[in-house]
Amino acid sequence: MTARITSLRTYDIRFPTSRDLDGSDAMNPDPDYSAAYVIIATDAADGHEGHGFAFTIGRGNDIQTTAISALEPYVMGRPLDATLNDLGRVWREMVHDSQLRWLGPEKGVMHMAISAVVNALWDLRAKREGKPVWKLLADFTPEELVDLVDFRYLTDALTRGEALDILRRAADGKAEREAHLFKHGYPGYTTTPGWLGYDDAKLGRLCKEAVADGFTQIKLKVGADLAADVRRMAIAREAVGPHVRIAVDANQRWDVGEAIAWVRELARFDPWWIEEPTSPDDVLGHATIARAISPVKVATGEHVQNRVIFKQLLQTGAISYLQLDAARVAGVNENVAILLLAAKFGVPVCPHAGGVGLCELVQHLSMFDYLAVSGSMENRVIEFVDHLHEHFVHPVTIRNGNYLAPTSPGFSATLRPQTLIDYAYPDGPVWTGTEAS
Amino acid sequence: MTARITSLRTYDIRFPTSRDLDGSDAMNPDPDYSAAYVIIATDAADGHEGHGFAFTIGRGNDIQTTAISALEPYVMGRPLDATLNDLGRVWREMVHDSQLRWLGPEKGVMHMAISAVVNALWDLRAKREGKPVWKLLADFTPEELVDLVDFRYLTDALTRGEALDILRRAADGKAEREAHLFKHGYPGYTTTPGWLGYDDAKLGRLCKEAVADGFTQIKLKVGADLAADVRRMAIAREAVGPHVRIAVDANQRWDVGEAIAWVRELARFDPWWIEEPTSPDDVLGHATIARAISPVKVATGEHVQNRVIFKQLLQTGAISYLQLDAARVAGVNENVAILLLAAKFGVPVCPHAGGVGLCELVQHLSMFDYLAVSGSMENRVIEFVDHLHEHFVHPVTIRNGNYLAPTSPGFSATLRPQTLIDYAYPDGPVWTGTEAS
Repeated sequence: MTARITSLRTYDIRFPTSRDLDGSDAMNPDPDYSAAYVIIATDAADGHEGHGFAFTIGRGNDIQTTAISALEPYVMGRPLDATLNDLGRVWREMVHDSQLRWLGPEKGVMHMAISAVVNALWDLRAKREGKPVWKLLADFTPEELVDLVDFRYLTDALTRGEALDILRRAADGKAEREAHLFKHGYPGYTTTPGWLGYDDAKLGRLCKEAVADGFTQIKLKVGADLAADVRRMAIAREAVGPHVRIAVDANQRWDVGEAIAWVRELARFDPWWIEEPTSPDDVLGHATIARAISPVKVATGEHVQNRVIFKQLLQTGAISYLQLDAARVAGVNENVAILLLAAKFGVPVCPHAGGVGLCELVQHLSMFDYLAVSGSMENRVIEFVDHLHEHFVHPVTIRNGNYLAPTSPGFSATLRPQTLIDYAYPDGPVWTGTEAS
Repeated sequence: MTARITSLRTYDIRFPTSRDLDGSDAMNPDPDYSAAYVIIATDAADGHEGHGFAFTIGRGNDIQTTAISALEPYVMGRPLDATLNDLGRVWREMVHDSQLRWLGPEKGVMHMAISAVVNALWDLRAKREGKPVWKLLADFTPEELVDLVDFRYLTDALTRGEALDILRRAADGKAEREAHLFKHGYPGYTTTPGWLGYDDAKLGRLCKEAVADGFTQIKLKVGADLAADVRRMAIAREAVGPHVRIAVDANQRWDVGEAIAWVRELARFDPWWIEEPTSPDDVLGHATIARAISPVKVATGEHVQNRVIFKQLLQTGAISYLQLDAARVAGVNENVAILLLAAKFGVPVCPHAGGVGLCELVQHLSMFDYLAVSGSMENRVIEFVDHLHEHFVHPVTIRNGNYLAPTSPGFSATLRPQTLIDYAYPDGPVWTGTEAS
């Protein structure tokens, strides 16, 4: 009997993070971090399930689960091995569905839904092969990797042949890098100190704690009030000293001219990068800002909808750091394309994380990049936010500011069964007020 | 008693257009034209309701109605007059909802949902004031119009002051233009002959009929097969003669290099514009194509997600014709911004229409533009496709290739009550196979 996919179940999971102002920034004053969660099950004897999710910040998480459910016909009943062994094809079928693509194309709710399903299929494949996703991908041949990528709309910047060249070059030294990764981990940076909702004392204390914990880079949210930002940057710089990098993040708050003026005011505190200075859709705006604020660098990506926008951000020299997101573009396959684009243009990838489970996912992508694509950790860091990890069966492990390489099979995406019950929205006990205290 | 909004009801309405290959193109082989439809009701004595919709092409229309329903808290219980008299504020509240914006921001399913609600509110306001939307808007003062617009992310290209200048200049001659509009209507062009699914004989016959009907521009779908496109362009050019304009539309089929090569092959048939040559997100790609294929011009817009992408298409000189869509960006307010941007850059607006009810909506925007923004019809045409108009209470009226100015109050968006019953998906009689034949 050929094993098949037998179900796609969705869960609306929300955490009441707005109660503590965790995650507050200039555009997101009261997020309730949420996961539109999906579990793909099969009739294989091994009993493995694939878990994936789209991350949202509360309202609309139900729209996201509805969109994931709409993808059920793409997986239900499919033969398991043939499906998992040709995820490039499954990706193309979903992304280019001639009717569903009208809802994007390749952006927003529908694209994030595809992300959840694609990542769940990768989780399932990795579990079945007994490898973490980073290792699964790093063991692919260059030809297998490029088969995952849809080069549509990319060929003016990156062809299949160029991608193969990048991957073949990176094959040199892969074993040594894997040994290095296991020994040292991958550098992280922390956003925990810098949420806008925290008072100055808490900011200073958390900055010092971050340095004590071994982080060499922190991040502050800015953009709501210039005087307050100057005050908070001074506190942070004082707390961490001159050598720890301080990135700042405006979460799309500014217009182009405003961004330039504001960053110039903060420049004396030596910010490492300015993140999301304006609309994530404004490629030219980012390029204009980058030219005007040099030597301060621009970073963006957590709201960049797809590889086509990343391509243009790279073509214009708008970004010096590319912040891919594991669950906004259409999952692993599109992120392989984005890692290849970044390598082509020589731009370091520093993934967006935090939220629910984004740290868990992106560590695999950065580690794969180190082993098999860019081959480098230079100027590369993975965001770390110390929220909600306790809900995952295999949470990230941070030691001395570094992400340790995960060893459990899969994509580290599996939420604890009790979390799926307790945080179900709107009927779970956390939301009905009936949870045990 | 202050009248209030009392309900927001959604309807999943689908037309089985794929049965006849109407609407078939290089990317959309089998669309079922659909409307995620919304009716906003009040407790005012006049009994008026606001009707709006997002247009989709089938699968996913249920996701779209779910997203519209999520906006119910933004309208339910609101005082009617205060709401309708400050639609700029309502727009900002919905578009910048700090949690919902994560699902875009300002793109895809969530943005199209806001479009449906915003347009329904405009329909309601216009009905209550006894005017068609084009006339309602044209009667606004420049100050009232700019208050509708959110200039966030636009000010590097268009400020509030510049927008006021444009509108004040256009006040001259408005009455004469209104008289001209009533007398002659507004030029249309027809896409009816050119769907990919039609055979050569039907193509030639429909081209001749279009000219006989008074159209001076037609459009052909291209991009699936170069030899076939050359053959079809030859048939069309032969049928319409040298003076009728033939636009061609690739529906995003090509990469940048492919678009340039393909259009050069078609250039000998003197195409008026090439529409959607590549990804709607690829601003730089469109600019590269435009430079390479000159004097053939580039047009795009039906899938352009918001004003930020339009801004960049104009800043780079990528497009010579801007094809706004009434129901993809966030409704009337965002389209006022887009008309102002186009006027600033001197680019004619030729709206995308067809589908379900898009002709009915966009005629109001073009006529408003003629009266109060660009003040010109030069090189401006509204797309016309002769599909599904019979389902509307006030369908468009075309005479000698021109759209006649609608006179019924509202946005011409109201579907017939029987259509809401017959075409309800999946339980209406058209879909269960129980309709009367």
